[in-house]
Amino acid sequence: MSADEVTLDQLPLRDDLRGRSPYGAPQLDVPVRLNTNENPYPPPAELVADVTEAVREVASTLHRYPDRDAVELRQDLAAYLSVSTRVPLTERNVWAANGSNEILQQLLQAFGGPGRRALGFEPSYSMHPIIAAGTRTDWLPAPRRPDFSLDAREAARLVAQRQPDVLFLTSPNNPTGGSIPPADLESLLRVAPGMVVVDEAYAEFSARPSAVRLLERYPAKLVVSRTMSKAFAFAGGRLGYLAAAPAVVDALQLVRLPYHLSSLTQAAARAALRHAEATLASVARLAAERDRVAETLQGMGFTTVPSDANFILFGGFSDAAAAWQSYVDRGVLVRDVGIEGHLRVTVGRPEENDAFLEASKEVPR
Amino acid sequence: MSADEVTLDQLPLRDDLRGRSPYGAPQLDVPVRLNTNENPYPPPAELVADVTEAVREVASTLHRYPDRDAVELRQDLAAYLSVSTRVPLTERNVWAANGSNEILQQLLQAFGGPGRRALGFEPSYSMHPIIAAGTRTDWLPAPRRPDFSLDAREAARLVAQRQPDVLFLTSPNNPTGGSIPPADLESLLRVAPGMVVVDEAYAEFSARPSAVRLLERYPAKLVVSRTMSKAFAFAGGRLGYLAAAPAVVDALQLVRLPYHLSSLTQAAARAALRHAEATLASVARLAAERDRVAETLQGMGFTTVPSDANFILFGGFSDAAAAWQSYVDRGVLVRDVGIEGHLRVTVGRPEENDAFLEASKEVPR
Repeated sequence: MSADEVTLDQLPLRDDLRGRSPYGAPQLDVPVRLNTNENPYPPPAELVADVTEAVREVASTLHRYPDRDAVELRQDLAAYLSVSTRVPLTERNVWAANGSNEILQQLLQAFGGPGRRALGFEPSYSMHPIIAAGTRTDWLPAPRRPDFSLDAREAARLVAQRQPDVLFLTSPNNPTGGSIPPADLESLLRVAPGMVVVDEAYAEFSARPSAVRLLERYPAKLVVSRTMSKAFAFAGGRLGYLAAAPAVVDALQLVRLPYHLSSLTQAAARAALRHAEATLASVARLAAERDRVAETLQGMGFTTVPSDANFILFGGFSDAAAAWQSYVDRGVLVRDVGIEGHLRVTVGRPEENDAFLEASKEVPR
Repeated sequence: MSADEVTLDQLPLRDDLRGRSPYGAPQLDVPVRLNTNENPYPPPAELVADVTEAVREVASTLHRYPDRDAVELRQDLAAYLSVSTRVPLTERNVWAANGSNEILQQLLQAFGGPGRRALGFEPSYSMHPIIAAGTRTDWLPAPRRPDFSLDAREAARLVAQRQPDVLFLTSPNNPTGGSIPPADLESLLRVAPGMVVVDEAYAEFSARPSAVRLLERYPAKLVVSRTMSKAFAFAGGRLGYLAAAPAVVDALQLVRLPYHLSSLTQAAARAALRHAEATLASVARLAAERDRVAETLQGMGFTTVPSDANFILFGGFSDAAAAWQSYVDRGVLVRDVGIEGHLRVTVGRPEENDAFLEASKEVPR
């Protein structure tokens, strides 16, 4: 038997992984890619120049390990969050990792794991149960209303009953787009017995105040996770972060892999943060485009779920998988998120959205 | 209670993490840093320029997610390994992550975890048991000879008896420096019931052939992990990788976080690999310095452990912690690895080694 002939079945893989497929949207090279909720606007030239210069500066010390605690980057992230949420934060309140997935994994390593359970309201970000499985945390799926909104009263009842060690609340929610009203969020924070992770990956697209402002009231349970992959147009840079009480950051330092954030990542993310204003200027444009796309879809007879994010979940297909392929055939990549009759489209540049809307006239319903 | 007042004790941290301290050598700003086995030679100017140019090229697409499978980087790593080990490999044999720590974590997520156990011969790389704990894999510590070499006969007996799901073999071993003779390695591969991870972080410093050449013979159990942090002088770039049968790579894709490797990391590592020859030219210089330092230490009456790596474990202290502080007081940072009477020193540039040797005359024995 050669190395090439060994199959996965012949390896001593954990039983719970057998038969699984790797997570991930197809990465297809089509003209219009509206499938992973990226910001469609490339980084401005000044940001590219600044990132490049920052990397040039650290490149001459690449033989040395990076700052293990990424203090300066965390200071910059705290400054950004302080301004945007109007809650004073320092680097002691902030932790950063290679994408918010790594943040969530570290949270479950510290507060979840074998014998513990995490609860989330589905459909939601599909990595939550996957990372739960990866950390051997039991996953408790809980329902949303038929219109995908969160029934806070029923949710609070379930949380009180199931007593999850970690509660995931996604606001705005992916893949459905709605966000959680502050009063509902607080009713769940009151009743949750363990840690509450508010996943705000799409917060910049929403007019709702961030859950960060609740940190002072629920310091021993609230964690707000964020990412630079969406509004910040930094998906390729892989930078997720969180805001919480300093003790939560202390906890994550017990489980993080040392030197997890490269010098390049730290330098490039800091450079990108210096251009936050320019990058986030796209948010208003994308919100306007989102509303135009949603209205046009409605005019075509599709249903759309009200969205506070940079994507729209829309329905009306008898066979969503076939419709997805039909979009691909027309050069448009959207996302089949596994919700019957629905697809999710990321809001792109106007010409990309036009191409999507044109294709929408032709795909089989 | 404000966020600042919450203590770790008040959080629902996992019991097995309570009382622990974060892993990591002190990052002190002293003139001579010989504590983390970095390559002391900064990247050459051409490498800095090439990394910078590579980053400039990808920076304009940072709004897009990176190649989730890092195919081109894996091709380049396979090409490097094929040349240096003379074993033909392709990207299907290679996987990459943010440092070899992430590689090891993914291996334990796939092949270890709750109800499974990993065995290693201590003292060895201290992250092995820490990552085992982080993935809830039981850790079975096994002994070395008093001179820190591996007793292959006794090791094989232990492996047969304890039946570990994952066996760690570190060659050259950190923090002791010795490597495992090929015949001993093979005797352990024969008897191991599960996966065998040969951690070759320091392989470039050793004249022994890589375990990669055993892949064809033990394709369903052997994994060879590597890093660009040491000989490659790329510690700040955080790039670990492995060579194994393609099925092992398939297994890791079930547990890896999607898009774990940023576009910047992929581009910068590829640029660094193009300069492998120039970077690795330092290996011979460091080996010569290692031998000079070891001999000088012996001449001073210290004991030294024969090293095949870029560091030396040396002994003769009645109080290693006090000696470590005394080195720091003299501007020299070495590593207290917790072995009674011993310290570990990384081989630096000649002038750094001279400073270390000068200090060695003065520190209390």
